[in-house]
Amino acid sequence: MSKVLIFGHLNPDTDAIGAAIAFAELQKALDVDAEAVALGTPSEETQYALDYFGLNAPRVVTSIKEETNDVMLVDHNEFQQSVSDIRELNILSVVDHHRIANFETANPLYYRAEPVGCTSTIIYKMYQEMEAEISQAVAGMMLSAIISDTLLFKSPTCTPEDVNAAEKLAEIAAVDLESYGLELLKAGTKLSDKPAAVLLDLDAKSFPMADKTVRIAQVNTVDLQEVFDRQNELEAAMATENAEKGYDLFLLVATNILDSDSEILAVGNELTQVEAAFDTTLVNNRALLPGVVSRKKQVVPQLTAAFNR
Amino acid sequence: MSKVLIFGHLNPDTDAIGAAIAFAELQKALDVDAEAVALGTPSEETQYALDYFGLNAPRVVTSIKEETNDVMLVDHNEFQQSVSDIRELNILSVVDHHRIANFETANPLYYRAEPVGCTSTIIYKMYQEMEAEISQAVAGMMLSAIISDTLLFKSPTCTPEDVNAAEKLAEIAAVDLESYGLELLKAGTKLSDKPAAVLLDLDAKSFPMADKTVRIAQVNTVDLQEVFDRQNELEAAMATENAEKGYDLFLLVATNILDSDSEILAVGNELTQVEAAFDTTLVNNRALLPGVVSRKKQVVPQLTAAFNR
Repeated sequence: MSKVLIFGHLNPDTDAIGAAIAFAELQKALDVDAEAVALGTPSEETQYALDYFGLNAPRVVTSIKEETNDVMLVDHNEFQQSVSDIRELNILSVVDHHRIANFETANPLYYRAEPVGCTSTIIYKMYQEMEAEISQAVAGMMLSAIISDTLLFKSPTCTPEDVNAAEKLAEIAAVDLESYGLELLKAGTKLSDKPAAVLLDLDAKSFPMADKTVRIAQVNTVDLQEVFDRQNELEAAMATENAEKGYDLFLLVATNILDSDSEILAVGNELTQVEAAFDTTLVNNRALLPGVVSRKKQVVPQLTAAFNR
Repeated sequence: MSKVLIFGHLNPDTDAIGAAIAFAELQKALDVDAEAVALGTPSEETQYALDYFGLNAPRVVTSIKEETNDVMLVDHNEFQQSVSDIRELNILSVVDHHRIANFETANPLYYRAEPVGCTSTIIYKMYQEMEAEISQAVAGMMLSAIISDTLLFKSPTCTPEDVNAAEKLAEIAAVDLESYGLELLKAGTKLSDKPAAVLLDLDAKSFPMADKTVRIAQVNTVDLQEVFDRQNELEAAMATENAEKGYDLFLLVATNILDSDSEILAVGNELTQVEAAFDTTLVNNRALLPGVVSRKKQVVPQLTAAFNR
C-alpha cells in the first residue's frame, strides 16, 4: 500500500486534529505507512493542547493527489468539508460521528460512525478493541478533543461513552480532567484580538440544505456581549462572504461555554428559515437560543428540516 | 424507541435476508423492539436455506412510514436499492460491505462498513464483540449468506475473515460446510423454468453512473449455454425494461459457479462503455469475462470508471 494521509475537516477543530493524530498512530501500529495531516492551522484551543502535550501541529495540505491516492478521513465525511481533490482519491477508511451526506465512494471501505460526542471517543474504543497502547501525548490530544466537542460534557451530544473515554484518557495523560478542561476551553475564547473575517472562519462549516448552501460558524466565549459589541463589523464580513462564496445564508452561533446558551446572528436571504427552525423571531438579526450548544445536534438538523419543509 | 424494522436491499439475496434476520436477533438481545422484514420474496437459494434451518421468510414490505419511522439497513445503503420511502425514515444504523453512494442522513447514526465478502461476516463479528449467543438457525442463515456472497470462497471479494466466520458458523449450524455450500448454490441455479423477466429480476440492482442509470442483473448457473440458449428472449425483456424504467444500459452477468467465469449480455445505449470497462469487444452483445464472479468488485467499479472517463 502506498503512503496513507489521514486528516479531519477544513477549519480543523481539536477533534479534527486530535483524531487524525490518534488514528495515524493506531494505523502505524498496524504497519500502515500513515501520516496525520491537517486541512488548516490549529485554533488557539488546539494549539494549547499540542503545546501542553509537546506535539507539533500536523503538516497543512490543500490538495493530496500529487502525493498519494490513499486517504483516511476522521471527524467528517461531507466532501465540501474535505480536501479540495477528495473526489479523485481512494478513501480507505472513515471514522466519524456526524450525519452522512455528500459522500460517496467507488469501492467498499471501512466506515465507522457512531452517534457519540466525539470522533476521538470512537478511536479510543478502537485502541481498546485492538489492545493497542496509547502514549501520554496521544491520550492528551484525544482527551482534549472530547473536552472540546462536548464542552466538558455539557453538550447534548455527550454520551456516557464520551465521559468514560475522557476519564480513562485523563489518567493516561496524567492531567486533572476538570481543571485542564476549563483551561483548554478558555484558550479558545480569545476573540477580541481577531478581525471579524478570522473570527468567522475559526470553526465554520458549509452545509447543502435543499438547494441552498448554508455557512454555519461557531465561536466559544465566556462573554456573549463581547462578541455582539462587534455586530456591525461581523454582519459586514458575513455579507461579504455570502457574496464572494455564494452562501445563501450565514449563521454565526456564539456559545457561552459557562452558561451553555448560544446567541445567533443571521445574515442572508433565508432568515425566515432560521426563524422557523428555532421557533423564534430574529430581532436585529439576532436571537438567544437557551440551552443550545451543539451545531451538529441543535442547529444543523433543525435548519435542514426547515429548508426541506 | 418505537418499533425498528431491519431489512436488506430490493430483490433480496441470501445475505440481504440472512443479515436482516441475524441483525434483528442481535438487536432483540439488546432489548430493541426489532423485526426483520424484506423488500421482496426469497430467491430459491434463500428459500432452500430458510427451509433447511426451519425459519419463515421475513414479511415483505414495500413502504414503511405508516408503520414506524425507525429503520436499520443491512447489506445496502444506496437509496435506489432500498425501500420506496427511505428518504422519509430515520436511519438508526447501517451494516454493509458495499461502496457508499446515494446515501445521506439528517442525523448522526451507527454505520459499520467493512470491505469483506459478506455483511453477515460483519454481523458475526458484532455477535463476538458483544459476546451474544448465536442460535443454530441464525448461524445457518449467516453461513448461507457467506457461502452465497463469496460463491463458496471463490469470489475475489472473499477475505480470511469470511472464511473464519463461515467455519465457526458451520460448527454452530451443525452442517458440513462444503457439501451444504454446494447444495445451497445449486438451489439457486434453476433458471430454465423462469420467464426472462423473472430471471432478470432475481438478483438485479440499479446504479447511477455519471448521469446515466445502469441496471445490472446477475444469475448463477452451472451451464452458461442454458442461459444463452434464450438470448433473444432475454434481450427483448432487457430492452423492454430499459424503455419502461428508463435504464440507459442493462447488463446481465451470467456466472458459472463451477468454473468461476462470467459471460455478459449487454442491451442499451452505452455498449461502448461496457467494452471500455472490461477491455473487450462485444460480439452479438456478449463477452466472456474469465475469472469475473463479483458484481461489486469486478463489474461495478470498472463500469463506473468507464462512465466517469
